[in-house]
Amino acid sequence: MNRINVISNLYDAVLFDVGNTLVRQADPGTPVSELRVDLLPGVREVVESLRGNVKLGVVSNTSSMTGEELLRFLQSAGIGDAFDVVVATADLGVHKPDPLPLVNAINMLDVQPKRTLYVGDNDIDRIAAERAGTMFCFTGPHLGEALLRHGDEPGSAWLRACMPTRRPVDGHARAVLEHLDRLVKPAGSLGALEAFVARIASVQHTNAPAIDPCGAVVFCADHGIAVDDTVTPWPQDVSAIMSGVIASGRAVSSVFSRSNDIYLEVIDVGLARQVSDAGVRDEAVRRGTADLRNGRAMSRVEAIEALEVGSRAAERLIGGGSRFLCVGEVGIGNTTVSAALISHLCGLKPSDATGRGAGIDDETLERKRAVVSAAVESVTGIDDPIEVMARIGGLEVAAMAGFILASTGLGIPVLLDGVVTQAAACFAAAIDPQVVASCFASHCSAEPASRFALEHLGLDPILSLGLRLGEGTGAMLAVPILRAVCRTLSEAATLDQVL
Amino acid sequence: MNRINVISNLYDAVLFDVGNTLVRQADPGTPVSELRVDLLPGVREVVESLRGNVKLGVVSNTSSMTGEELLRFLQSAGIGDAFDVVVATADLGVHKPDPLPLVNAINMLDVQPKRTLYVGDNDIDRIAAERAGTMFCFTGPHLGEALLRHGDEPGSAWLRACMPTRRPVDGHARAVLEHLDRLVKPAGSLGALEAFVARIASVQHTNAPAIDPCGAVVFCADHGIAVDDTVTPWPQDVSAIMSGVIASGRAVSSVFSRSNDIYLEVIDVGLARQVSDAGVRDEAVRRGTADLRNGRAMSRVEAIEALEVGSRAAERLIGGGSRFLCVGEVGIGNTTVSAALISHLCGLKPSDATGRGAGIDDETLERKRAVVSAAVESVTGIDDPIEVMARIGGLEVAAMAGFILASTGLGIPVLLDGVVTQAAACFAAAIDPQVVASCFASHCSAEPASRFALEHLGLDPILSLGLRLGEGTGAMLAVPILRAVCRTLSEAATLDQVL
Repeated sequence: MNRINVISNLYDAVLFDVGNTLVRQADPGTPVSELRVDLLPGVREVVESLRGNVKLGVVSNTSSMTGEELLRFLQSAGIGDAFDVVVATADLGVHKPDPLPLVNAINMLDVQPKRTLYVGDNDIDRIAAERAGTMFCFTGPHLGEALLRHGDEPGSAWLRACMPTRRPVDGHARAVLEHLDRLVKPAGSLGALEAFVARIASVQHTNAPAIDPCGAVVFCADHGIAVDDTVTPWPQDVSAIMSGVIASGRAVSSVFSRSNDIYLEVIDVGLARQVSDAGVRDEAVRRGTADLRNGRAMSRVEAIEALEVGSRAAERLIGGGSRFLCVGEVGIGNTTVSAALISHLCGLKPSDATGRGAGIDDETLERKRAVVSAAVESVTGIDDPIEVMARIGGLEVAAMAGFILASTGLGIPVLLDGVVTQAAACFAAAIDPQVVASCFASHCSAEPASRFALEHLGLDPILSLGLRLGEGTGAMLAVPILRAVCRTLSEAATLDQVL
Repeated sequence: MNRINVISNLYDAVLFDVGNTLVRQADPGTPVSELRVDLLPGVREVVESLRGNVKLGVVSNTSSMTGEELLRFLQSAGIGDAFDVVVATADLGVHKPDPLPLVNAINMLDVQPKRTLYVGDNDIDRIAAERAGTMFCFTGPHLGEALLRHGDEPGSAWLRACMPTRRPVDGHARAVLEHLDRLVKPAGSLGALEAFVARIASVQHTNAPAIDPCGAVVFCADHGIAVDDTVTPWPQDVSAIMSGVIASGRAVSSVFSRSNDIYLEVIDVGLARQVSDAGVRDEAVRRGTADLRNGRAMSRVEAIEALEVGSRAAERLIGGGSRFLCVGEVGIGNTTVSAALISHLCGLKPSDATGRGAGIDDETLERKRAVVSAAVESVTGIDDPIEVMARIGGLEVAAMAGFILASTGLGIPVLLDGVVTQAAACFAAAIDPQVVASCFASHCSAEPASRFALEHLGLDPILSLGLRLGEGTGAMLAVPILRAVCRTLSEAATLDQVL
């Protein structure tokens, strides 16, 4: 992916000032007919890179040019056609720092201010952006470099959530492995578990990795693909029902969380029907996605909002004390969505990725395979993960990715559940491959895509029991295993203490 | 195995009355020279079957024959040479029901009274047996049938422990599977775990299977094979040290038991050095086995005593409330012993069964393979499991088998740990194949024999993490998984309750 496209992960629209941002500023008073189009360094590449990935616009303080003239002016430099909107302030009768020209452009693009970046060259531009509620980026000697610097800086809430803190390579994993070798046991005798706890130590940035307090979030949403019985016999409403049952303490995941001392939160990211149960936190971005068969499950803005729901949840639980997090989901139809996402992200044949989910007959499986194939086909060649998520993804999948991204940034490991959570991890890894270092695979599920997703992520599962329940249940089952080994580090004697 | 050999699993010696037990009683007063040898039905087969498996003797009230004459008399019927001792009461000046002739025979055979069976035809014989402290069996029209009936009856403490209560095929497993299908989850979505809890229900004879209270016993013993560094670099004394560390709460298994709410008991069945730690229960049968390279690790009596230690432990924990038991072990050198036992019991090539245990170099592995091969060779053709255990087994292995046998009899499932516990299960299954139905495999260990033992037992492991620690640690890690699923049966809602 072109590096500049980090910007299209952060914003739905980028608006540009013209003078000294896109083109070298002419002397004041130069007649319009004599204006030379002198594109500044990086402009052509930036515009070409962003075109098609985000909406683009121009908002320029002009005293003598109309919008149409400004557009022709940019077209003469070969970049005019890239812009979805061109606002010349003269047309509106107001000038920056009045926010109206920016607000006008935002409205025409149908985007949200906080998803919009305005790029300009001076404080008047910055103040206008502030008043309009958009993000702002100062340009510099090279536009592309300025945008890349902006992409690397903390900015929007989502940017903060999705960009993990870069930590130096640490010695915690090695320290833990060395300590394990000193304990009263044969070296290496805890098998695969030793590498798991060493990695937890590395993520938690400590020589005393801990599982407790342990939290789990089950993200719940509905999918337009499940409005009929094409891919599943279960009605959409079952998602809302199950969300309520989990919150009421009577679902399998409720029992598992109690049995294994895990704090459990249920979040509605987009159920088709709002759940009245007080235990379900309502953060619905929309009431179910649209049917992906019609080309788009949600808007880019909604995909990012769902990511934010997930990242806020991680921040809240971590703020509340959680040192280790499990992630799970409820969403009728979401094994179809995750099969499509995993196929696209892992380069897998759709027919190999598609399984029976909660249990379907052969005919439904055939239809499901066709839906997954068509969905994968519809995003072929699209590198931008946000766009892929918006077209064929799900709100709970996006939320789980935000959860993973934010947890990674805060140094808290995330234990994945089954195939849908693994799809979310693949998606998060497409945004930032570093997140995989903080992810742990509780199990390889019965869904065929699970094995491929884990291979793609390079994660070894702890359990392999043919589970296919979801709700975070597989993750919750693996928690006591990791907890016991972590406790061993601090509670068991070393060989030289007893010999 | 010849069925009559069930007797040789229960006793070390069988003593017989002569008149109306081995031979038809002559009329009183018949001159010795005219006595006819008329063997009763089944006698020849019984003597031939038991010969070589238990010590055999004759104790007969005789007024006119000496022991030597009695022996010649039996030799003339072709069975005299089978007897290790022949006592004619006339030689001692006392007659049954005086116990002295029996006590005399027992002393000459160097066996314990409770390991000795006396077979006779009337109450005088029975009273003599009672006074001598031996077990007694009335003969009948056919000696073999009488002994088989005796073998099927509750008798010695060990007999009671090792013969599981026969229960009718029950519907608990089916009821649990049906209930699982009614819960708020896709049918079958707990994968392999559903069959596990159904089997727990079947063993516990209830529709509400439970893991708690959960107990674990770590049986500790030493092995003569580890007196030098032929098979392991670890000195024998490490067994005693580790037993103390476990009891003191600072071993890996201590931490795992705390972390997973498992009551833990440490039992010394035969450590080379007695452990002063009050937390180690001293039930040592002997202070370490003899070196199996010299042909015999322990006596049959000791093997049976070790079985009894295990069965008493199970009875005590179950009496204390345990509904589910884990079993584990400590014993430097015991992967050598278990490789030999599994090779013999499962028909496996010794080289395929032998692994690196706690960690050994290539040269030690070669020596270990040679020891295992020679041990297996030394018991080739021996069907009697007690005899095999006595020759090449270990005290903790025998104890674990007793633990399994007694738990099975009382309807309590036993969760096996690694390869040494699996060897114990194979041994228990050789005594009574029914025990396998109550055994659960927590994991397939890194030792190569583990996979073969589990195949032989027909058990699917819950975990497969390359563990090779022992001490019951693998079993303890699997407990929370089974606990969570069992709790689901009573705590989760059914679909029709929420739809």
